[in-house]
Amino acid sequence: MNNIVDSLKQRIIPGTKKKSRIYRVRKKQAGLPPGTLIHTGIKKVENVLIDITEYSEEKFDEKKIETVEDSFRLRDSELTSWINICGLHDTAVLEKVGAHFNIHSLVLEDILNTEQRPKLDDYDSLLYCVLKSIEYDETAGEITSEQVSFVLGKKWLITFQERLPDCFGPIRERILKSKGRIRKGGADYLMYALMDMVVDNYFSVLEKIGDSIQYLEDELVGDPRTENLNTIYKLRRELLFLRKSVLPLREVLNTMLRDDFEFITAETDIFIRDVYDHVIQVMDTVETYREMISGMLDTYLSSVSNRMNEVMKVLTIIATIFIPLTFVAGVYGMNFDNFPELHWKWFYPWGFWSTIFVLGVVMFWFFKRKKWI
Amino acid sequence: MNNIVDSLKQRIIPGTKKKSRIYRVRKKQAGLPPGTLIHTGIKKVENVLIDITEYSEEKFDEKKIETVEDSFRLRDSELTSWINICGLHDTAVLEKVGAHFNIHSLVLEDILNTEQRPKLDDYDSLLYCVLKSIEYDETAGEITSEQVSFVLGKKWLITFQERLPDCFGPIRERILKSKGRIRKGGADYLMYALMDMVVDNYFSVLEKIGDSIQYLEDELVGDPRTENLNTIYKLRRELLFLRKSVLPLREVLNTMLRDDFEFITAETDIFIRDVYDHVIQVMDTVETYREMISGMLDTYLSSVSNRMNEVMKVLTIIATIFIPLTFVAGVYGMNFDNFPELHWKWFYPWGFWSTIFVLGVVMFWFFKRKKWI
Amino acid sequence: MNNIVDSLKQRIIPGTKKKSRIYRVRKKQAGLPPGTLIHTGIKKVENVLIDITEYSEEKFDEKKIETVEDSFRLRDSELTSWINICGLHDTAVLEKVGAHFNIHSLVLEDILNTEQRPKLDDYDSLLYCVLKSIEYDETAGEITSEQVSFVLGKKWLITFQERLPDCFGPIRERILKSKGRIRKGGADYLMYALMDMVVDNYFSVLEKIGDSIQYLEDELVGDPRTENLNTIYKLRRELLFLRKSVLPLREVLNTMLRDDFEFITAETDIFIRDVYDHVIQVMDTVETYREMISGMLDTYLSSVSNRMNEVMKVLTIIATIFIPLTFVAGVYGMNFDNFPELHWKWFYPWGFWSTIFVLGVVMFWFFKRKKWI
Amino acid sequence: MNNIVDSLKQRIIPGTKKKSRIYRVRKKQAGLPPGTLIHTGIKKVENVLIDITEYSEEKFDEKKIETVEDSFRLRDSELTSWINICGLHDTAVLEKVGAHFNIHSLVLEDILNTEQRPKLDDYDSLLYCVLKSIEYDETAGEITSEQVSFVLGKKWLITFQERLPDCFGPIRERILKSKGRIRKGGADYLMYALMDMVVDNYFSVLEKIGDSIQYLEDELVGDPRTENLNTIYKLRRELLFLRKSVLPLREVLNTMLRDDFEFITAETDIFIRDVYDHVIQVMDTVETYREMISGMLDTYLSSVSNRMNEVMKVLTIIATIFIPLTFVAGVYGMNFDNFPELHWKWFYPWGFWSTIFVLGVVMFWFFKRKKWI
Amino acid sequence: MNNIVDSLKQRIIPGTKKKSRIYRVRKKQAGLPPGTLIHTGIKKVENVLIDITEYSEEKFDEKKIETVEDSFRLRDSELTSWINICGLHDTAVLEKVGAHFNIHSLVLEDILNTEQRPKLDDYDSLLYCVLKSIEYDETAGEITSEQVSFVLGKKWLITFQERLPDCFGPIRERILKSKGRIRKGGADYLMYALMDMVVDNYFSVLEKIGDSIQYLEDELVGDPRTENLNTIYKLRRELLFLRKSVLPLREVLNTMLRDDFEFITAETDIFIRDVYDHVIQVMDTVETYREMISGMLDTYLSSVSNRMNEVMKVLTIIATIFIPLTFVAGVYGMNFDNFPELHWKWFYPWGFWSTIFVLGVVMFWFFKRKKWI
Repeated sequence: MNNIVDSLKQRIIPGTKKKSRIYRVRKKQAGLPPGTLIHTGIKKVENVLIDITEYSEEKFDEKKIETVEDSFRLRDSELTSWINICGLHDTAVLEKVGAHFNIHSLVLEDILNTEQRPKLDDYDSLLYCVLKSIEYDETAGEITSEQVSFVLGKKWLITFQERLPDCFGPIRERILKSKGRIRKGGADYLMYALMDMVVDNYFSVLEKIGDSIQYLEDELVGDPRTENLNTIYKLRRELLFLRKSVLPLREVLNTMLRDDFEFITAETDIFIRDVYDHVIQVMDTVETYREMISGMLDTYLSSVSNRMNEVMKVLTIIATIFIPLTFVAGVYGMNFDNFPELHWKWFYPWGFWSTIFVLGVVMFWFFKRKKWI
Repeated sequence: MNNIVDSLKQRIIPGTKKKSRIYRVRKKQAGLPPGTLIHTGIKKVENVLIDITEYSEEKFDEKKIETVEDSFRLRDSELTSWINICGLHDTAVLEKVGAHFNIHSLVLEDILNTEQRPKLDDYDSLLYCVLKSIEYDETAGEITSEQVSFVLGKKWLITFQERLPDCFGPIRERILKSKGRIRKGGADYLMYALMDMVVDNYFSVLEKIGDSIQYLEDELVGDPRTENLNTIYKLRRELLFLRKSVLPLREVLNTMLRDDFEFITAETDIFIRDVYDHVIQVMDTVETYREMISGMLDTYLSSVSNRMNEVMKVLTIIATIFIPLTFVAGVYGMNFDNFPELHWKWFYPWGFWSTIFVLGVVMFWFFKRKKWI
Repeated sequence: MNNIVDSLKQRIIPGTKKKSRIYRVRKKQAGLPPGTLIHTGIKKVENVLIDITEYSEEKFDEKKIETVEDSFRLRDSELTSWINICGLHDTAVLEKVGAHFNIHSLVLEDILNTEQRPKLDDYDSLLYCVLKSIEYDETAGEITSEQVSFVLGKKWLITFQERLPDCFGPIRERILKSKGRIRKGGADYLMYALMDMVVDNYFSVLEKIGDSIQYLEDELVGDPRTENLNTIYKLRRELLFLRKSVLPLREVLNTMLRDDFEFITAETDIFIRDVYDHVIQVMDTVETYREMISGMLDTYLSSVSNRMNEVMKVLTIIATIFIPLTFVAGVYGMNFDNFPELHWKWFYPWGFWSTIFVLGVVMFWFFKRKKWI
Repeated sequence: MNNIVDSLKQRIIPGTKKKSRIYRVRKKQAGLPPGTLIHTGIKKVENVLIDITEYSEEKFDEKKIETVEDSFRLRDSELTSWINICGLHDTAVLEKVGAHFNIHSLVLEDILNTEQRPKLDDYDSLLYCVLKSIEYDETAGEITSEQVSFVLGKKWLITFQERLPDCFGPIRERILKSKGRIRKGGADYLMYALMDMVVDNYFSVLEKIGDSIQYLEDELVGDPRTENLNTIYKLRRELLFLRKSVLPLREVLNTMLRDDFEFITAETDIFIRDVYDHVIQVMDTVETYREMISGMLDTYLSSVSNRMNEVMKVLTIIATIFIPLTFVAGVYGMNFDNFPELHWKWFYPWGFWSTIFVLGVVMFWFFKRKKWI
Repeated sequence: MNNIVDSLKQRIIPGTKKKSRIYRVRKKQAGLPPGTLIHTGIKKVENVLIDITEYSEEKFDEKKIETVEDSFRLRDSELTSWINICGLHDTAVLEKVGAHFNIHSLVLEDILNTEQRPKLDDYDSLLYCVLKSIEYDETAGEITSEQVSFVLGKKWLITFQERLPDCFGPIRERILKSKGRIRKGGADYLMYALMDMVVDNYFSVLEKIGDSIQYLEDELVGDPRTENLNTIYKLRRELLFLRKSVLPLREVLNTMLRDDFEFITAETDIFIRDVYDHVIQVMDTVETYREMISGMLDTYLSSVSNRMNEVMKVLTIIATIFIPLTFVAGVYGMNFDNFPELHWKWFYPWGFWSTIFVLGVVMFWFFKRKKWI
C-alpha cells in the first residue's frame, strides 16, 4: 500500500491536491495529554465573533461583544442567556470560556476537533451536545457539514460554530419578536429550538437529493449512459456521508428522552420527542433513497447488458447470413479446369441466386423463430 | 449534483412535471416555531367535511355539521362520540378543534404534515396516533396512501382524513345496525375498529400485488422480455413503499399492547393484539414478496445470459464451419500459373467437395462433443 | 401494474387458473366486525368429522360422533378429553363449540382463516395455539401445508384440522396402547405430543429436500443445464415457504417456555423444551440449505460463464487463424496484369504453403502462450 | 421436485451412494413417544467400551470394565468419578445407565440422536451438555464431527462418544500424572478440561483451513483455473459446516457463565470463561475466513472476466484489421471486363500494398489509442 | 482439501514460505493443562527489557532493571508504580511476576498467546486487559499489530509488549514533565493514558488508508486497470484486519464504563468515555471505508464491462459493414461463362462502387440510430 501512496505523491504536484472531506479523520499527535486544545479543522473565519442574547418573557437584549470576558457575567444572570461563538481557531477564547463556565477539558478538546461524531455527554454541572449542520454547497455540488456544539448550563447556553454565516438568525428573530413559546421556555427550550432548526435543514438537503434521484430515474428508463453511472455513485456517496451524520443523532436524541437530565424540563421533552421523530423520518428517507439507488444501479447494469445482447445479435445475424454466402461465391470463383457448373448457361442467373435466396430465407426464418429479429 | 439538477431544470418544461410520491419529503421552512400550522399535503377536497356520531348501547345519532363549533359539546357528552374531519387545508378548523379539545400544538402540526411516519404519542390528556391508509389506484397503477390521524380522549375520538371519499363508511354502518360489539365498546374500541379496517385494506393491496407477481413468474419461465424487467423494478418499488408504511405500524401497535394507556381498556387490548397479528402477517407477506421478486430478477438475468450464450454459440458454429471452408475456396481461386490441382480432372467434383464434407463432419462432431448442438 | 393485471386476465381463460399457494393472502372484506366467521380456505372435506377421546391412566374411550353437541359433556368430564374436528367449512359447528367451551370470537375467526401465521394466544380461560402441518405432496412435487389449531382448557383439548386424512392417528394409538407416559399426562401433555408429531414431520420434508439438493450438486459438478437452474429456484422457493412456517413456531414455543401458563405443568415444560430444540434444528437445517442453494447458484452461473468463455475462445482461435489466411488467398486471387508472384513457378507449392504454415504455427504458439489451448 | 428425486433414484445404483454428511437430518419416525431410544447415527465401533476413572488429590484409579453395572457404585463414591462410554449402538447399556443415574429419558434420546445441535440442558439432579468434536479427516479431505455428550452429577461425570479412538487420552494422563490443578478440581473441572480439549481441536482444524486459503490466494493471483473455483466452494462449505458446530457452542458456554448451576463452582467458572474466549476466537476466525473466501470468489470471477476481455480484444483486432483487407483483395479478384486498375502496370506492387499498409497502420493507431494493445 | 494442502507443500520449498499474519491462529497442543506457559508468537526481541516508573504528584523515579525481582517491592509501594516488560519469550520472567503479583495462570497464558482477541477480564485482586497496538509497516506495505497486555492492581500497573521499540515513550515523558493531570491520577489513569495512545495510533493508520482510497478513486475514474483491482482487494483485506482488532475493543471499553470496577475511579471513567468515543469513531471510519471500497469495486467492474461493450461494438461495426461487401466482391469474382454483369462496360466503376457506397451509408445510418457510433 505504501508504494501506492508513494507513487501517488510523485504524481500529484504538492499543494494542488487537498484532502477530500470524506477521507479526513481526526488526527491529534498520539501521546498528547487529553484536553490539549488543538484546532483540527480548517480556519473558516477571520476573527472569532461572539454575540450574546439575554431574555425573559418581558425583557430582551442582544449585542455583539468584542472580548469574551464581556460574556462572563451571564453565568449568574437571572435571565435566560445565550452566548454564540463563531470561529474555533482562537484556542485562547475557548480556554477562558472553559475556565469561567467550568467546562471539562475533554469537552473543550471535542469542540475543537471538528471531525467529531454527534454525541451527548453528561457532566454533573452541564450537558455537552455536538451535532452536524448540513448544507448543500451549490458550487461544489456536494453536501458540506459544519460542526455545531452546545454547552447547556442551568440558565445559559453556549453554542460554538465553525464559521460564518451564523445559521441561527431565524431563532434570534423568533426570540426578538417573541413568536411561539420561545420566550417562555428556558435555556433547554432554546437548545431544542436550535437543534430543530439544524434537523429541518436536513429535509432541504434530502429534497435536493430526491430531485436528483427522480431525474436520474427518468434518464435511465430512456437512455442509460456512463455519466448516469457516475452520478449514481456520487449520489450513493453523498447519502453515505449524510447517513454518517444523522445516524448518531438518533442515539443522541434518544438518550435525551430516555435519561433524566437535570437541565431539561418535562415540557421540553415533548418537543425533543418531536425532533426525534423528524430524525427518524430523515433516516427513513435516507434508507429509502439508498435502496432506490441500488435499484437504479441494477437497472443500469441490466440495460447495459441488454445493449450488449443487441450488439451481439446484430453481429451474429449479419455474420451467419453472409459468411455461408461468401463461401458459395468463393466456390464459384475457383479456377479448376474441370468445373462443370461454370459452363451451365443459366446457372448463374437462376441456380446461384436462388441458392443465395433460399439460404437467406432459411436464415431469416431461423432468426425469427429464435426471436432475434 | 448541482449541475445535474440544473440541466434537469432546463430540460423539463416547468409545470409539466410534478414531484413523485416517493421523493416527497416533509418540508417546513427551517426555523419556524414548532406548532406552526402549515398544510404540507395537496389540497384534496374542496370544503372541509365534518360529521359527528354519538352512540351508546341504546342510542344512536349521526349528522353532518356545518361549522366545527357544533361539535364542541361532544367533549363533555355522556355518550361515546366520534368526530370525523375530511380535509386538512383549512387550518382554522384545526386550530379551533385543538383549542377546545386541548390538543398539543405539535399534534396539530403533525396532523397537517401529511408525510408523517406512523406513530403513537401519549399526551397526558389524550392519545395521538397516525397511520397510513393504503389504496390501489387503478388508473395510475400505483399504490396511493392517505394519512389518517386519531386523537383519542376519554369518551371521544376525533379522526382526520386527507380527502373524500370517507373510507370509514362500513364502520358507521356497523354502529348504526349495531352489528358486533361496537355499540358496547367505548371510544377505544371504535379506534380499534377503524384501525382494523385500515389494516384489512392492506390485504387487498397485497392480493393485487400477489397477482402481478404470480403472473410475472409465469411470463419469465416462458419468455423473458425487457418489459418484464421494468415490471419487476416497479413491483419492487411499490413493495418498498408499502413496507415503509407498514413497518412503523408494528411498533405503534406493539407500544399500544405493551404500555398501559389510560383510555384503552383490557378488553380492547385483546382486539388490538388481533390487529397486531394482522400487521405482522402483512409484513411477512411483504418480505416474502420481496424475496420472490429478487429471485425473479435472478431468473431474468440468468435467462438473458442464457440467450446471450445461445447467440454466441450460433455465431461460433457458423463462423467456425464456414471460415475454414471459405479459405479453402479462396485457395483454389488463386491465379498462380503453376497450380497443379487446378488441372487435375476429378479434383473439383471429388477432392474439393470431399475435403469440404470431411471438414464439416469433423466440426459437427466437435460441436456435438462440446454439447453445443 | 394495473395494465399487467388486466392483460393477465385477458390471457388467462377464467377458471383454468387457480391462485398459487404462495400468493394467497388472508382476505376478509374490510370493515366486517371482528369475529365474523368466514372460512377463507378451500373446502377440503365433504362432511365435518368429529371424534372424541377420553382417557385417564386406567380408562380409555374413543368414538366418532355425529353432532357436535355430543361432545359438550366433555367440558366437565373427570377424564382427560380430546375433541378432534376435521373440516372447517361448516361455521355452525364452530359457533356451537365456541359458545359452549367459551372460546373468544377472535379465536374462532383465526381458526377459520387458514392463512394464519403460527402463534400462541393466552386467554384467561384457555390457551389458543395455531401451527402449520407440513407435508410433501408427491404428485405436485410441492410442500403443502395444513393449518392445525389447538384450544387447550384445563382438562380438555380441542384440535381443528382442515382436512382428512386425520394426521394424529399414531398419537391416538399411543393413547390406546398406553405407550410412553401419554396416559399419565394431562391435556397439556397431549398437546405437546401432537405438536411434537407435527414437528417430526418437518424432518421428513427436510430429508427429501436434502436429497434433492445433494442430487443437484452432483449434477452441477458434472454438467450444468438450464433445467438445473429451474430446480434451484424451485428449491429456494420451497425453503422460503418452509421457513415462513417454521420461524414463528420458534417464538410460539419460546413463549410457552418463558411464560407461566396455568394449564401447562412443569413436567410438560421439559418436553416442550425438547420440541423447541427440534424446531431450532429445523431452522438451522433450513438456513444451511438456503446457503448451499445460494452457493449452487453461484456454481451454476460461473460454470455458464466458463462455457461462454470456451465458446469465445474456439471462435477466436478459428477466426484469428483463418481470417489472415483467407486474406492471403484473396490476394493471390487478384487479377492484376502485372502480378509477378503468379508467374513464379514454385511460388504456389512452396512460397504460399510455407507462408500459410508459418502463420499457423505462430498463431498456435501465441494461443499456447496465452493458455487458450 | 418429486420428479427430480425419482430420476435421481433411477440413476443412482442402490447401495453405491451414501448420504452426505451435510444433508443428513435427524429422523425418528413421526409419532413415536418421546424418549424412545433409537440410535440414529452410524455404528462406528464394534463393542461398547466403558472405562472408569476415580480420583481425589491423593488417590487415582482407572480401569476398563466389561459390563456397565460395574460402574454403578460410582454414583455414591466419595472420590470424583468419570465414566467414559465409547459407542452408542447398544441402547440397552444406555437404558441401564439412565435408570441407575436417574437420567431423563429425553436426555437419553438426545445422546443417541447424533445429529444433535450443541446445547446445555439443566435437569434438577444433573446437567446435560452435548457438543461436537471436530477432526480433519486426511483421507477424505473433509471435516468430520463426532458428537460428545456430558452428563454431570454432583461428584461424577459420564461422557458418551460415538466411536474409537477415545479422544480424551491426554486428559486421563493429566489426571494420572497430576499435572495442573485437575486432581484438585471436582467433576465440574473435569468437564471443563474435556470441553477445553474439544475446543483446542477446533484450532488445529482452522489452521489447516487457513493453510488452504493462503495457498489458494497465491494461486489465484498467478493463474486462476476452474479447479480453484471448486476448491473455493469446497472451503466455503467446510466453513459453513464448522460454523454450524461452533455457533451454538457459544450460547452453551454463555449460559454456563451467566446462570448459576449447582454443580459448577465459581473457580471453575473462571476456566469456563477462558473456553468461552477461545470459542469466540474460533468464531471470529471462521467469519474472517468466510469473508476472505468471498473476496477470493470475487477475485476469481473478475480475473475470468478479464480473460474474456482479452480474448475478445484479440479477436476484434485480428478481425477488424483483416476483414477490410480481405474485402480489398476480393475487389481486385473480380472479373469485370472493364476494370482499369487491373491493367495499370505498377498498381499491384505499389498501389495495392500501400493501401494495405496504410489501412493496417491506421488500425494499429486506433487500437493503440483505445489502449487495446 | 487434503490434496490441495499436499500439493501446496510439494510446491513450496520448505523454509522459504512463512505463514501470513491473517491465517495465523492460536495453537497450543490440545489437551495441555490450562495455564501452561508457552509463547505462541515470534521472538521479536533479544532480551526481555524491564523498566519501572514510580511517581506521585511530587516524586518521580524511573529506571531500567536487570532482573525482574528488582520490581517486586513495587507491589507494596506508596507511590503509583508502572512496570513495563518488553519481550515475551522468556516464560520464567512471567512466571515469577505472576507468582509475586498474584496473577491467575490463565492470565499469564493469555499474555503469552499473542493471537488473543482484545478483552477485559476481572479477577478479584486485579483487572486484566489486552488490546492490539496497530502500526503501519512502511516496508511491507501492511498493517502490523502488536499485542499489549495490561494488568492493573490497586496502585500498580504492569504492561507487557511483544517487542521493541517501546511505544509508550511519550507517556513516560508526560509523567516526567508532569504535563496534564497524569501525575495526579493513579494507576487507572495511567492505564487510560496508555490505551488512549494506542487508540490515537489507529487514526494515523486510518489516515494512510484514507489516502490510498482517495488516490485509487481518482485512478478509477480516469483509467481502470487490473492493478487497481489488486489494490482494492488489498485495501479490503487490511480493513478487515483492522476491524477485527478494533471491534472487540469497543466491547472492552463499554464494559469498563458500564460495570463498576474497584480500581477505576469515577474521574477516570470520564476519560475512558472519551477513548470509547474515539473507538466508535474509528469503527465508523472503517465501515465507511469498507462501503467506499465496495463501491469502487462496482465502479471497476462496470467500467470493465463498458470496455467490453466498446470492443464488441467496434468488432460488430467493422464486421457488419465489410462482410456483406466482401460477399458482393466474391460474387463478381466468380468464373461463370454466362455472367452478363461482367461484360457491362460501366458496371464496375458505377454499378459496383455505388452498391458498395449505398450499403455503407445504410449501415452507418443504422449504427447511428442504434447510438453505437
